[in-house]
Amino acid sequence: MEAIGKRRWAIAEGYIPSGSVDPDDPALVSHETACILNAGEREAKVAITLFFKDRAPVGPYRVIVPARRTAHIRFNDLEEPEPVPRDTDYASVIEADVPIIVQHTRLDSRRAEIALMTTMAFADG
Amino acid sequence: MEAIGKRRWAIAEGYIPSGSVDPDDPALVSHETACILNAGEREAKVAITLFFKDRAPVGPYRVIVPARRTAHIRFNDLEEPEPVPRDTDYASVIEADVPIIVQHTRLDSRRAEIALMTTMAFADG
Amino acid sequence: MEAIGKRRWAIAEGYIPSGSVDPDDPALVSHETACILNAGEREAKVAITLFFKDRAPVGPYRVIVPARRTAHIRFNDLEEPEPVPRDTDYASVIEADVPIIVQHTRLDSRRAEIALMTTMAFADG
Amino acid sequence: MEAIGKRRWAIAEGYIPSGSVDPDDPALVSHETACILNAGEREAKVAITLFFKDRAPVGPYRVIVPARRTAHIRFNDLEEPEPVPRDTDYASVIEADVPIIVQHTRLDSRRAEIALMTTMAFADG
Repeated sequence: MEAIGKRRWAIAEGYIPSGSVDPDDPALVSHETACILNAGEREAKVAITLFFKDRAPVGPYRVIVPARRTAHIRFNDLEEPEPVPRDTDYASVIEADVPIIVQHTRLDSRRAEIALMTTMAFADG
Repeated sequence: MEAIGKRRWAIAEGYIPSGSVDPDDPALVSHETACILNAGEREAKVAITLFFKDRAPVGPYRVIVPARRTAHIRFNDLEEPEPVPRDTDYASVIEADVPIIVQHTRLDSRRAEIALMTTMAFADG
Repeated sequence: MEAIGKRRWAIAEGYIPSGSVDPDDPALVSHETACILNAGEREAKVAITLFFKDRAPVGPYRVIVPARRTAHIRFNDLEEPEPVPRDTDYASVIEADVPIIVQHTRLDSRRAEIALMTTMAFADG
Repeated sequence: MEAIGKRRWAIAEGYIPSGSVDPDDPALVSHETACILNAGEREAKVAITLFFKDRAPVGPYRVIVPARRTAHIRFNDLEEPEPVPRDTDYASVIEADVPIIVQHTRLDSRRAEIALMTTMAFADG
């Protein structure tokens, strides 16, 4: 399939609550996700940079999304160069060497019931 | 009405939870929907391709949206070429031969209360 | 302020649940809203057309948004040419004679807790 | 990092519920947020103007977002030229002297459980 998307995306919202009612169920742990689709025929080398309120940006976090595959990246799982702090406002810029699609999702389970939100990220250029 | 929209759309998020508190109420079963609007004067032939994390894309799933009509397609209901797996990350590309609008929605009823999320899909070109 | 926005918008999702846990509280009754911002110096004459799955479009519903004002239009409250059916999939096209911004929101209170979703509508042209 | 975004954004939805189940937990108080990302190398001078249903716009509210930082601005916290009224429909235009990204979020805790919604704001020009 012909590639679809853009090479540069941004998400201004970011916040991983430290609490979850049921921390033993991975699907229902509070998390923030960057869902990335690489519909094209070439592997995507993705670099994520995190921005904060009162300190320098951190990154890049490097992720590979194979050709014709999707990767739903949980910010909770990012480890290198450092884990994403909980209960802290952040934002992100996501850059790739081929066109990709980026959609942002949060599942919040601080309370007994889950809350969900999603939006397409902002596509630059 | 003059056609409105684009011919190529993408949704990077996709996940149909297998669980629902009340599986006997179709309106409240956990589901993901691609809401398609064909505001123009010609029938839309729509092809949906699904992308996964670790296997080849599946599709096309074929849907007809008549002229001047909307179709809210539940991914849960797609059957050919194969049903959409539950509890599995996926993404989708939606292509049509005339301009359409695509909006993505999830209703999640794994817990007693429902959670909702929606976004316009990414419009290409 | 200089006008901002577009003259033609579309929302592919539409569904007003008939049920609400507490139908006596207007703020918490299940509803769908088209939030319209007219930031410019001229009154906006807005026409809303509704699309359905299996019958002809209905409209236009006519709304005036004064210059430099916002109007949060509940689809529940549209009466002319006919009320919007409950528990029915629909979609909408929103046209104005000056640039406006349109954002779509649903508050769903079929269960004891509310669920929310929102997205910018699709801006044409 | 090269600047990313636009200089003029709009959010048509705005509504801060006066009620919160647990008003003593700042993270869970009902709030509306404009998440702003300034990924570029120059400080952003941001001006927010609020629009209402039946009175003149109010503003500008002035906010500085340093270079390479994010600021998640709660409308609840805006004080000058006047606080944002509760239980009142509003909309906003957000302007900056350098490119920024704006994402809109509401956390609603009128009921015991929270509801979330988010969308990228509309980027003009």
